[in-house]
Amino acid sequence: MTSIIHRRTIRKYKKEDIPADKLEALLYQASRAATMGNMQLYSVIVTRSEEMKEKLSPLHFGQPMVKGAPVVLTFCADFNRFTKWCELRNANAGYDNILSFFNAMSDTLLYVQAFCSLAEEAGYGTCYLGTTLYNPQGIIDLLKMPKLTFPVATITLGVPDENPEQPDRLPHLAYIHDEAYQDYAPNQLDIIYYFKEQLEENQQFVKINGKENLAQVFTDCRYTKKDNEAMSASLLETLKSQGFL
Amino acid sequence: MTSIIHRRTIRKYKKEDIPADKLEALLYQASRAATMGNMQLYSVIVTRSEEMKEKLSPLHFGQPMVKGAPVVLTFCADFNRFTKWCELRNANAGYDNILSFFNAMSDTLLYVQAFCSLAEEAGYGTCYLGTTLYNPQGIIDLLKMPKLTFPVATITLGVPDENPEQPDRLPHLAYIHDEAYQDYAPNQLDIIYYFKEQLEENQQFVKINGKENLAQVFTDCRYTKKDNEAMSASLLETLKSQGFL
Repeated sequence: MTSIIHRRTIRKYKKEDIPADKLEALLYQASRAATMGNMQLYSVIVTRSEEMKEKLSPLHFGQPMVKGAPVVLTFCADFNRFTKWCELRNANAGYDNILSFFNAMSDTLLYVQAFCSLAEEAGYGTCYLGTTLYNPQGIIDLLKMPKLTFPVATITLGVPDENPEQPDRLPHLAYIHDEAYQDYAPNQLDIIYYFKEQLEENQQFVKINGKENLAQVFTDCRYTKKDNEAMSASLLETLKSQGFL
Repeated sequence: MTSIIHRRTIRKYKKEDIPADKLEALLYQASRAATMGNMQLYSVIVTRSEEMKEKLSPLHFGQPMVKGAPVVLTFCADFNRFTKWCELRNANAGYDNILSFFNAMSDTLLYVQAFCSLAEEAGYGTCYLGTTLYNPQGIIDLLKMPKLTFPVATITLGVPDENPEQPDRLPHLAYIHDEAYQDYAPNQLDIIYYFKEQLEENQQFVKINGKENLAQVFTDCRYTKKDNEAMSASLLETLKSQGFL
């Protein structure tokens, strides 16, 4: 597990392919992650064809890893398989609701991280695409996902062709609470975010974007209220049409 | 990473304590997991006191691991810390919506699994409590969690005092799809669930519960439509009162 301590996101990959049997072995080993009632409420869709990568690319806002990686993995919360099995057995499945979606999303994300740890330990590089939740309907249509499934994470995977610096992380006092949540006083926030705020590259982002500080880069440029609210509305619509709300 | 291949849930722990510095080191190392825009949208509340375990126990339906483990960890999706920082910097935070909750929940669950892998590699045993999402309001009240936080996972942690059999897992053909989702035909479902259905212990569950088959044990006893719908309604209420909906 030294690999997780040294982990960095890898966005550039060698042309080298990933053999199907190696990938399948990693995907199978990852299934040892904890799963709700041992139901394994996930599926993974493997994209290797250039044609499908071409179509996936705009759904991930053109991030170059989609076309640059030998393999793109779309991990889906999946209550379809389990429900179809229940129906086949004359059992009254009741998994078309938000709790069931959350259970499936939890299973899926534990599985994703177990897979990433195994893949990185095997020498592969991964990049987690947060854009999956920005346009789930487009992904659902392209990958022909039925009701009671939902894409929750996308990983690009390949042999690393770069070795970037590790990004900063908050000091652990920032997120560990003893016995109860201790809310944050202004002077604590100053300490917690000090290292991040004084980083040369972050000060550059502030300057380039003409902002007063790093927080404004996040709120005004990267993750704006307007975008979050528009995407939240479409997320809820898609949860409804996939049968979870 | 051999630990994940041999992983099993551990529900019985030795009386042995977990030193605070060891736990903190593992919680810090796990922060290397991928995180949305490097925002680290999570917190973890560490329960060690008997008094708090006593109060947490009924919120997890009396599962004995809560009182039996030296440490209980409640992992929370957390946009409170980031939002408070934004406010302190005069930045217009817009994270009181469902997309932001999903982003924080994703960060949190990747972090949880990274932590579990590290803890298991270090020789500890873990049990993932799915009950966290069943009664989030009770947990929020007890752990004094502010708006824009939400408990999404609970892990009990300790030195293993048992070595149970590994549970079955589905064959990987069950959840891997090439290029697009391939829906399940009845004969495929028969194959996928064959091993699980013929397991001695599962046949016992069917008999004890007076059901026709294993699927009915799930739908009629373990995860019923009625319970799921009731808990879904209160989950949505709590998402609303925590400021995410």
